[in-house]
Amino acid sequence: MNEVQLTIDEIKSIARDCLEGHGCNAANADAVAEIIAMAEGDGCHSHGLMRLGGYVAALKSGKVNGLAEPFTQQLAPAVIRVNGDSGFAPLALKCGRQPLIDAAKTNGIAALPLVNIHHFAALWTEIEPVASAGLCVMACTSYKPVVIPAGGSKPLYGTNPFAFGWPRGSSPPMIFDQASSVVARGEVMLAAREGHSLAAGVGVDADGNPSTDPDEVLKGALLAFGGHKGSSIAMMVELLAGALIGESLSVEAAVRDNNDGGPPQGGEFMLAMNPELFGDAQGWNARAERLFEEIVAQDGARLPGDRRYRCRREASENGVRISRSVYNKILEL
Amino acid sequence: MNEVQLTIDEIKSIARDCLEGHGCNAANADAVAEIIAMAEGDGCHSHGLMRLGGYVAALKSGKVNGLAEPFTQQLAPAVIRVNGDSGFAPLALKCGRQPLIDAAKTNGIAALPLVNIHHFAALWTEIEPVASAGLCVMACTSYKPVVIPAGGSKPLYGTNPFAFGWPRGSSPPMIFDQASSVVARGEVMLAAREGHSLAAGVGVDADGNPSTDPDEVLKGALLAFGGHKGSSIAMMVELLAGALIGESLSVEAAVRDNNDGGPPQGGEFMLAMNPELFGDAQGWNARAERLFEEIVAQDGARLPGDRRYRCRREASENGVRISRSVYNKILEL
Repeated sequence: MNEVQLTIDEIKSIARDCLEGHGCNAANADAVAEIIAMAEGDGCHSHGLMRLGGYVAALKSGKVNGLAEPFTQQLAPAVIRVNGDSGFAPLALKCGRQPLIDAAKTNGIAALPLVNIHHFAALWTEIEPVASAGLCVMACTSYKPVVIPAGGSKPLYGTNPFAFGWPRGSSPPMIFDQASSVVARGEVMLAAREGHSLAAGVGVDADGNPSTDPDEVLKGALLAFGGHKGSSIAMMVELLAGALIGESLSVEAAVRDNNDGGPPQGGEFMLAMNPELFGDAQGWNARAERLFEEIVAQDGARLPGDRRYRCRREASENGVRISRSVYNKILEL
Repeated sequence: MNEVQLTIDEIKSIARDCLEGHGCNAANADAVAEIIAMAEGDGCHSHGLMRLGGYVAALKSGKVNGLAEPFTQQLAPAVIRVNGDSGFAPLALKCGRQPLIDAAKTNGIAALPLVNIHHFAALWTEIEPVASAGLCVMACTSYKPVVIPAGGSKPLYGTNPFAFGWPRGSSPPMIFDQASSVVARGEVMLAAREGHSLAAGVGVDADGNPSTDPDEVLKGALLAFGGHKGSSIAMMVELLAGALIGESLSVEAAVRDNNDGGPPQGGEFMLAMNPELFGDAQGWNARAERLFEEIVAQDGARLPGDRRYRCRREASENGVRISRSVYNKILEL
């Protein structure tokens, strides 16, 4: 038997105990465990228990503050900053969420820069609660340089995910969350772990030669999706989650990081908008639903996030199968 | 001689006279002529005089109000809507620009939904003044369905450009402006006009088969850049420039449009942020400049917009060469 069957609650509990055992207080452990369990439940193993080793390494090395007490500061009527107190991102996000929602509901649009955090999670887990509160939401974060700017030769950008969420009343929101690289680094790590090859055009080895070997690509670099257009998106993410908010660019994060396997210190940018205050409070929802209907009416096309929500329903009934090797590594932790 | 040499002022004057001759008042003619001249000066012929025929057609058919008097309405502390009064977009944008800048400077972030406009221009011409005022700015707009959703078979999205601008003090701002399709429709029109083939993977013919013939692709459909990721961006643009602000989706715009060659009625979405109010008023500029230096230090990599600014300097000294066939068509108008 190469797999272990676990419920979402069991996953959360395993993750929480492990993090508490390595120096997180209950609030921090709980916030991280929640998003790990959510990732596993949504079928995104690359952001699930597999990351626990990195979280633990970052606590062990002392670069992350497991007792972090994030706090907010109102920088302008529609800008609320969260200082993460050098902790993992999830508690900082929890701290900033309601202030962001309130500011967007009042002002129509509001921004939530997050600084002094260590980010290791999937953005969709972070924006879903904001979209579920009835807001249109965007978020992005940078990392360490692993993506080559279009036309260039050296990694400069992080995989720099950009996520967008749209509220759908009592249904789960429409959310996409996509790395600015052709594939996310987590997927390359997963391919390496499982011994799969990558598609051509995903990355290059340490010498800059195209490679489909995930181990070689992890030593080399990833390419931006869609050539110079994805590269522009990656650059925008550096500016929003770095320069704009007073946090590190990916190149700066890398220099400062101790490379213990955990996330570097960095920033995150989020903004939210209240569709009720954009001039069509009666019609916005129906019009969006019409668009979604047009998409799913096409054979082969699908709404972003649909697969995750299917996984979530399945996981809530039957739990999740975790690979035995990942599970054993966690028991060792 | 297949080309005509014109100064930027001459281009503007030709465009203005032509538009006034077809029913625009001075304010509307001037606003459109300005962005046509700017496109030509920046080396973007597909958005220059070549579009004058479409503008004129839209005036002749009566679908566009050449005497439009756009007006703003404050929908929320940080949301100002412009109603374009069924005119071309440029005057509406002029009308909303300063209120957007003021709201962003005060609130930190602000949004400018534009409704009841006919949009036919390049977004970079529209966001540059906002970025030059010291703000970080995003904009997007939809069109008529010409792009197939990833995995699907029928056009649903417009080319749906998304643009981003970043202020650089007294230097021209960094701006990218990119269609959600692999190439912009204007480029396909230009290739058709000039008899060039398209690259593979750009579009399909009316039967859905891959084609490199621009005439066939204009009858068929374009593909989104970067597969499902560009397709998600295109969908986001539909939601922001359509559903969120109470304006048409591309599919709705198409149904309502008389297909006279001019732009359909639609919406545009813009937001702006004041980097001075995001927590690092002292450092944001230097950090962004560091990123830009890292990009241009790589052989082959370049900053988006650099080519345009080179063209602009060249055009301000030597004017612009316009193809004789385009020029003759304008004289006929």
